[in-house]
Amino acid sequence: MKFEVTILGSSSATPIFNRNPTSQALNVNERLYLIDCGEGTQQQMLKFDVKASRIDHIFISHLHGDHYLGLVGLLSSLHLNGRIKPLNLYCPRQLKEIIDLQLLCSETDLQYEITYKFTNPNEAEIILENQDVTVETIPLDHGMACTGFLFREKKRLRKLLKEKIEEIKIPVEYFTALKKGADYVASDGKVYKNDTLTFDSNAPKTYVYCSDTSYNEMYFKQISNATMLYHEATFLNNMLERARDTRHTTALQAGEIALKTNAGKLLIGHFSARYKTLNELLDEARSVFPLTELAIEGKVFVIGD
Amino acid sequence: MKFEVTILGSSSATPIFNRNPTSQALNVNERLYLIDCGEGTQQQMLKFDVKASRIDHIFISHLHGDHYLGLVGLLSSLHLNGRIKPLNLYCPRQLKEIIDLQLLCSETDLQYEITYKFTNPNEAEIILENQDVTVETIPLDHGMACTGFLFREKKRLRKLLKEKIEEIKIPVEYFTALKKGADYVASDGKVYKNDTLTFDSNAPKTYVYCSDTSYNEMYFKQISNATMLYHEATFLNNMLERARDTRHTTALQAGEIALKTNAGKLLIGHFSARYKTLNELLDEARSVFPLTELAIEGKVFVIGD
Repeated sequence: MKFEVTILGSSSATPIFNRNPTSQALNVNERLYLIDCGEGTQQQMLKFDVKASRIDHIFISHLHGDHYLGLVGLLSSLHLNGRIKPLNLYCPRQLKEIIDLQLLCSETDLQYEITYKFTNPNEAEIILENQDVTVETIPLDHGMACTGFLFREKKRLRKLLKEKIEEIKIPVEYFTALKKGADYVASDGKVYKNDTLTFDSNAPKTYVYCSDTSYNEMYFKQISNATMLYHEATFLNNMLERARDTRHTTALQAGEIALKTNAGKLLIGHFSARYKTLNELLDEARSVFPLTELAIEGKVFVIGD
Repeated sequence: MKFEVTILGSSSATPIFNRNPTSQALNVNERLYLIDCGEGTQQQMLKFDVKASRIDHIFISHLHGDHYLGLVGLLSSLHLNGRIKPLNLYCPRQLKEIIDLQLLCSETDLQYEITYKFTNPNEAEIILENQDVTVETIPLDHGMACTGFLFREKKRLRKLLKEKIEEIKIPVEYFTALKKGADYVASDGKVYKNDTLTFDSNAPKTYVYCSDTSYNEMYFKQISNATMLYHEATFLNNMLERARDTRHTTALQAGEIALKTNAGKLLIGHFSARYKTLNELLDEARSVFPLTELAIEGKVFVIGD
């Protein structure tokens, strides 16, 4: 099952040439989930071949402009391009007011329905569950209502013990039931318990997205053992005080969080425009957590690779 | 005196790779006037070296997203970059409500003041007059409140009749007064009337910006004799019916408008995303009005050149 993320934007609020504010497109089993939608996200989607029409779920972490100012344009373009299937939007409550006002002022009556699920900044909760993933909010510490998102693959099917299956000569039409946990009753009435025929596949993989936050242990437990952790790293650690004041994280801290929460891999992003190149941020995070990568525009990361 | 326009965006609402929604930066005597501000305008300004800090006046024609969705991000960036000098915003009344709501939701308290001047979609009026230009609104026909803008250079100083000046031996310190229209009184008391010493310089140049509109003679008189006319040309003329339905103009019509209103030069823009290349639009407008150019991203047009 495909589980990969395409980075559409990597920068924080102040604009810098050739970097875009935060947005990511997560592909789970060929369905697209858009996470945050900074200004210019539509252009980034065109550039990196992310099909807007394939997005059914959009997640907005908080209402700082660099995380959502591309959204109304995208909603409007979907309308202009003929979308009729509903769209699900997971976001702070006030965003509905903003969208409604902007659509009203542009005299736009969307042809498709937006189904809102408002996030609760104080408590983690499951906001989506379908055949492929469950999605939980992660309350973060950003001085305003702000949640990250945890995407967990649905528990995978069990795997067949091939030698045993061949030995008993179980017909292929039973395989799906076996993978789902059923026992096998042979034509002679003999019962083979499922755990003698199959084994547990790997644990479900997770992608954790921590958009904007101070270093704060309050969310460490929830994000622990992430297959891949995306964490903001706005500053170098020599700006720790500024990071604290603005409720952001340094690259060193992001590395420490990955280490403490036992992440499989760390992506860092949301870089301040003051950093014209990003090597120092990467080196700093890697000094603590070597399996770190820069979440830069156009990069595609396979989760669990 | 510098009088030139840099095109920052040329496309209509539906996004297309490498074209941006409408925005233009007008430079009059080294002061910048931003006209419309579609999504991504900040990135375009970085790309084409248009300094946001030098903008004191922003004009928004109407509240379709492709003409203003980049504005709140820009206002926020000016704040983050330490702006304290006031900013003047000329726009439909409802835009203030949108901006206020978005700033409230992002908990942003701007360090600088925005002075609003709301445009009246029904009547042309002068909305700005300073030492360099006067700016008038142009009521357009777009099915919603929408105005274009007419920028007129301030009347220029008179020019000295050099031979006469030398003959009378007028000292250089009198030249500015003469250019402004004063008579000259010689040391012997003799009075020389100004019109014997100077002559009228060229007529003030004008830049006319017609963002989104149907072909409608109602605004032809006001825009006549433009030194340079920017006019939208969303469609080719084989889509005349669609242009009418959506209150837009075809390239052929734009050429006709330039011809009928005696424009010096025509720029066309606001191209539909259906046109991957723009040659046909240009050819169509030029078939009626040869002095036509495409208003494409990064182009700089000197007005009156």
